[in-house]
Amino acid sequence: MPENVQVLHARWIIPVEPAGAVLDDHAVVIAGTRITALLPGAKARHEHPDADHVELPQHALIPGLVNAHTHAAMSLFRGLADDVPLERWLEDHVWPAERRFVDREFVREGTRLAAAEFLRGGTTCFNDMYFFPDEAAAAAAAAGIRAVVGMLVIGFPSAWAATPQEYLANGQRVHDAFRDHPLIRTAFAPHSAYAVEESTLTRIAMLAEELDVPIQMHVHETAAEVAESLARHGLRPLARLQRLGLVNERLLAVHMTQLDDGEIELVARAGVSVVHCPESNMKLAAGFCPVAKLATAGANIALGTDGAASNNDLDMLAELRTTALLAKAVAGDPCAAPAADVLRMATLNGAKALRLEHEIGSLEPGKQADVVAVDLGDVRSQPVYTPLAQLVYTGHRDQITDVWVAGRRVVENRRLTSLDEAELVKSAQRWRARIQGGGRSD
Amino acid sequence: MPENVQVLHARWIIPVEPAGAVLDDHAVVIAGTRITALLPGAKARHEHPDADHVELPQHALIPGLVNAHTHAAMSLFRGLADDVPLERWLEDHVWPAERRFVDREFVREGTRLAAAEFLRGGTTCFNDMYFFPDEAAAAAAAAGIRAVVGMLVIGFPSAWAATPQEYLANGQRVHDAFRDHPLIRTAFAPHSAYAVEESTLTRIAMLAEELDVPIQMHVHETAAEVAESLARHGLRPLARLQRLGLVNERLLAVHMTQLDDGEIELVARAGVSVVHCPESNMKLAAGFCPVAKLATAGANIALGTDGAASNNDLDMLAELRTTALLAKAVAGDPCAAPAADVLRMATLNGAKALRLEHEIGSLEPGKQADVVAVDLGDVRSQPVYTPLAQLVYTGHRDQITDVWVAGRRVVENRRLTSLDEAELVKSAQRWRARIQGGGRSD
Repeated sequence: MPENVQVLHARWIIPVEPAGAVLDDHAVVIAGTRITALLPGAKARHEHPDADHVELPQHALIPGLVNAHTHAAMSLFRGLADDVPLERWLEDHVWPAERRFVDREFVREGTRLAAAEFLRGGTTCFNDMYFFPDEAAAAAAAAGIRAVVGMLVIGFPSAWAATPQEYLANGQRVHDAFRDHPLIRTAFAPHSAYAVEESTLTRIAMLAEELDVPIQMHVHETAAEVAESLARHGLRPLARLQRLGLVNERLLAVHMTQLDDGEIELVARAGVSVVHCPESNMKLAAGFCPVAKLATAGANIALGTDGAASNNDLDMLAELRTTALLAKAVAGDPCAAPAADVLRMATLNGAKALRLEHEIGSLEPGKQADVVAVDLGDVRSQPVYTPLAQLVYTGHRDQITDVWVAGRRVVENRRLTSLDEAELVKSAQRWRARIQGGGRSD
Repeated sequence: MPENVQVLHARWIIPVEPAGAVLDDHAVVIAGTRITALLPGAKARHEHPDADHVELPQHALIPGLVNAHTHAAMSLFRGLADDVPLERWLEDHVWPAERRFVDREFVREGTRLAAAEFLRGGTTCFNDMYFFPDEAAAAAAAAGIRAVVGMLVIGFPSAWAATPQEYLANGQRVHDAFRDHPLIRTAFAPHSAYAVEESTLTRIAMLAEELDVPIQMHVHETAAEVAESLARHGLRPLARLQRLGLVNERLLAVHMTQLDDGEIELVARAGVSVVHCPESNMKLAAGFCPVAKLATAGANIALGTDGAASNNDLDMLAELRTTALLAKAVAGDPCAAPAADVLRMATLNGAKALRLEHEIGSLEPGKQADVVAVDLGDVRSQPVYTPLAQLVYTGHRDQITDVWVAGRRVVENRRLTSLDEAELVKSAQRWRARIQGGGRSD
């Protein structure tokens, strides 16, 4: 049977690679799950007369966005507690709620809810860190979204696992179960250098080589974390991780708000990917990641939303914009983090961090057809001098009309084709009633 | 003839006054242009059987947002130049484009384009600073949006006026022409302490008393501005303004990114309104306004988007969110700028800055019916633990479905009733072709 061929005709195509390129009136040709060509629109019509042609006359096509750090299922805790100190947020709200409510069903429903928000917002791949990654993987697969699920390890027992050994064993079972799934990958996800013991971290470094997977961790999220590490171990967390053999190309170091110049050099040289989560860092007053300095040093910077409990949305387009604005403010330089660079962070750099850069992250022949259509024709986007800057500085997720993942059109005219929104709303409301009824007195 | 009565039934009403209040299943009763009551929904149905009842079953009603600093017509320059240093942005891009293209028609069309974006985004009142304020006022009035238009004074000739005297005279003619218009007010708008000479500023202080209007100015936008003032005058700009008699309750000091503790005390004590424009400040790397310190000192803080050339949108809901996030990050305190305070900045504080707090800024009987309905039922907003925090941290302008200004429903089910969006898009595209063709070579 011949593969289904789709031809997406768009006013602009921003392929991300080559850097800064914008193609006018071109088309993306998709055969099955993969991109086979980028052609001038007329040529694509001529060469593919029998294909399914999709007309996007006032749209920009971009690669699917890669959310390189999130806790998807926490969408059910969105807005559970705001405007409170980090310790109270964790100790009085998030951790008690997690102990009480997080089980298989919670992760399944929370991940489905997050997947709806991801897809509607143009995120086609997310890197998850949470309990029950098998449920997250299954929910993502069913929703038609690409996911890297974390083989979580954290230093306390949960409904998912009791000991570090059990976390690792359960994680590896998830890795094995999904190893041939086209949309699902795994990564090790030790929570942090303070919440996982050293022997386990060493073991993870070894296992990551064996399984050939990345490792994502919270690293240098707050000044307090760094100070505590210095007091307890005489070393900053990054130095500890280096001693344990984790500072290399496999590492996704999430947050990194506390970095001296030597550490910036180190991560750039070692090929560590820094996952910048600006909105979460701002909301929790965690600190400022030195994005401009990292970029100058040549580090690979990817972007994440973090979980919906600390953001409070999973909107990557907003995160792009915040990244561009905040990097300028922090560097004191309006030229820092220009639009093209920020879009690259949210696509190809994220793919690279996840070791998927040969499959996703740009619109190039041979890559998976993860494509997002952004309507720039709305009155609120006018006029359009430069589509790339317009996308970053004026783009809102409501302008995203269509999304493809591996060639499947999962959002069509702003409607999800793989998930039932009304049912998800009802499910979230049931969870709210249960959590608010049982966990808080108001 | 009896006045038209509308009853807006909403899942939640957030009246802003009293502070932090959220009413469940209440209704706003509107007679003609004014709010007459807030009642439980059932009671409102019983008392007003013949009224026009509007059902908003999954919405929050909030007061219309007040954009306390913008240059509306610059929407036609949206995205003209990004990621460039401030001086190049002004000297190579904005000022040449203004000299070449800004005329009556530009201001009319640009303000109409901005008005569409304001209304769709829940802004029902904007405080403008630009050339041809008479055109801005007429465009706003026709669009059904409330505006305070600036009697601009700037130290160079333009198509609007040649000398300070002419700027003042033209401004006062606008004041006289619109003095009885229900939607239009005026304010003096001397550009800044560096771009207007002292004798003119002194005269403006006197005229503002006579006409009983506010004065809006850019103050302490950048460190360079402060340094230059110190070098030229031996005083920081705020100190110069104090010497000239402008530091009082009439002053809207816009930006204020450079403030020492004494200045924070001064503006709080003198009743100056600080207009915080966080996204513009970030994008131009101007500096950080100390919002938490100003709030603690008791200063009146209002919010603005600035113009679309430096933001690049006119989205007040996004500005609220950025304000809440940035204030926390800058203060190093996740409790800074809580949701209720930030919504107040964007409504009642803005009204107070414009001396309109008895007319707008909260949903209270007797006030003008400027009301915004935000749909919190979308899958991307679920679940809703606390509507106020949800609005600030998760609210996107695409969730705004209906907007009333002075009782007139100017947005209905996400469609403008007072402006033709398709026509505005065409107009913006014509201007882009002209400006891009004539002003730049790409």
